[in-house]
Amino acid sequence: MLTEEVYMPDLRKDPILGRWIIIATERAKRPSDFGTEPQEKSDEKLCPFCVGNEKKTPPEVMAYREPGTKPDTKGWWLRVVPNKFPALEVEGDLSRTGEGMYDKMNGIGAHEVIIENTDHNKTLPELERKNVEDVIWAYRDRTVDLKRDARFEYILIFKNQGKAAGASLTHSHSQLIALPIVPKRVKEEMVGAQNYYENKERCVFCDIIRQETKSVARIITENEDFVVFAPYASRFPFETWIIPKKHDSAFEDIQKHEVIHLACCLKGILTRMNKVLNYAPYNYILHNSPLTTSHLPYYHWHIEVMPVLTRVAGFEWGTGFYINPTP
Amino acid sequence: MLTEEVYMPDLRKDPILGRWIIIATERAKRPSDFGTEPQEKSDEKLCPFCVGNEKKTPPEVMAYREPGTKPDTKGWWLRVVPNKFPALEVEGDLSRTGEGMYDKMNGIGAHEVIIENTDHNKTLPELERKNVEDVIWAYRDRTVDLKRDARFEYILIFKNQGKAAGASLTHSHSQLIALPIVPKRVKEEMVGAQNYYENKERCVFCDIIRQETKSVARIITENEDFVVFAPYASRFPFETWIIPKKHDSAFEDIQKHEVIHLACCLKGILTRMNKVLNYAPYNYILHNSPLTTSHLPYYHWHIEVMPVLTRVAGFEWGTGFYINPTP
Repeated sequence: MLTEEVYMPDLRKDPILGRWIIIATERAKRPSDFGTEPQEKSDEKLCPFCVGNEKKTPPEVMAYREPGTKPDTKGWWLRVVPNKFPALEVEGDLSRTGEGMYDKMNGIGAHEVIIENTDHNKTLPELERKNVEDVIWAYRDRTVDLKRDARFEYILIFKNQGKAAGASLTHSHSQLIALPIVPKRVKEEMVGAQNYYENKERCVFCDIIRQETKSVARIITENEDFVVFAPYASRFPFETWIIPKKHDSAFEDIQKHEVIHLACCLKGILTRMNKVLNYAPYNYILHNSPLTTSHLPYYHWHIEVMPVLTRVAGFEWGTGFYINPTP
Repeated sequence: MLTEEVYMPDLRKDPILGRWIIIATERAKRPSDFGTEPQEKSDEKLCPFCVGNEKKTPPEVMAYREPGTKPDTKGWWLRVVPNKFPALEVEGDLSRTGEGMYDKMNGIGAHEVIIENTDHNKTLPELERKNVEDVIWAYRDRTVDLKRDARFEYILIFKNQGKAAGASLTHSHSQLIALPIVPKRVKEEMVGAQNYYENKERCVFCDIIRQETKSVARIITENEDFVVFAPYASRFPFETWIIPKKHDSAFEDIQKHEVIHLACCLKGILTRMNKVLNYAPYNYILHNSPLTTSHLPYYHWHIEVMPVLTRVAGFEWGTGFYINPTP
């Protein structure tokens, strides 16, 4: 008898651009893919992220829960579980191979879901500040844990809010992907920042913070530890960055007072965005330095918040740059 | 009395990534922007691209029309007009300046619309092959004309089909943007192709054509002059490339027999896509070499066709790479 075939996604490299693509056929099984299924029912009884439905997710990898309660049972207020339709598989080795002139490797990585709270209907900015702090702690704790795995070179934390932003379930959640390569977009950011540093011996992000806080015009809010501002060359209307004032390349080194202030910024900016943009869908991503580097003088971790208001079309695909209708 | 203020978009450079962004506030006036307006009415009487409504567009820059008929009147079967809500302005000079640590320049360029036929309801693949040939000739004629303008470094030709792909009018049309810079995505393609060439002294695109035609698996169709195939590291399900068999870096040097065969491929692949994907929206782009180069041994012009089936979300924005659920 055959044992169950082990599914393994493919990582394929574009021979011209050097960009890696994940070919994850398993994800085509997601009910929401290709938009052929009706909108996910917002029913708490069916929701795999709701209390009491813990068995509907793969076993949890971490949770903040009442002392004495057991994994995958009630008692949690934040839960981290593997994605049921992962883009990457956590078991196996990388095994890089060729395919004629092409290069590929096994799609090894971790794809986790951070269930941010127990309330099915509360979005992140509607949570208590303490809860938002715990979401940030979960980001940090998972990063520290996955950093130990030598197969991973980068961890991306991101959130898709709303169907148009790619969220397939309504219960508020973030995601984390650990990758065996540093993605192209991050590499470019690193190279750009390093070039600037070699030229000026100053961090480009620190320089941006200095210029923005001086001119004020693009600042949205700030507190002791963070600045929230609209970047000069925004790709999207109402694009916003949250950046720590103190130079630090590694998000996971965040201090307790910084977590509190970051929670204030995140809750604050998302609440304001919801008000101004009438609950438009959005994505945010946390850009951290690669796992194998530490204490880089030229890189500065930050969060990029991108409301989904405009459509990306032929021009953007063809050029890699963006038309933004807001100043 | 004040004269009408001249509107000028901004080109702003991201200080970290070196990516240029177009800040085009004028485009925020488009009725379809921000998705707040109801879907564009598909009424031929109101359609600015229909015969008889020539005055609803800016004056035409070119048309294929019956000899003896006047510009901006009936008698045309293909018409090229400036975009009414251009991302870039054709009048003025570039004037690069700084803004503190930031760099910017005037948003100079051309943004044109190619109205592909007179029939309001016929999509590109439903046109006669002769008409499709004329669309290709129009792409070529406009490229040759705009190439004379020393302010422009790159011309991107693209098509957005369907609302989800960014089309704001239903009457079938393509677009052309002439840019004062070579966009990042094209630069990357050039650099990648050049590196490959320096290493192997062969064009990477020619190598791809050789490997694909030999292995057959990824070939969708081919004829005397063109190969249509699914690229190895596709970003999107059913992504398809059309590429000339004979090495050529400049699209505008296309020959008549090639125009005929390209029209066959374009009509054929779009018809098949419509059948298989149930008229899914799509984008295509024509990647040509920059205007200031010629006869590059390492670059090879081509068309990339991308159906809009999956959503680009936080992961893609954060990494610059893509999860494709199809093999």
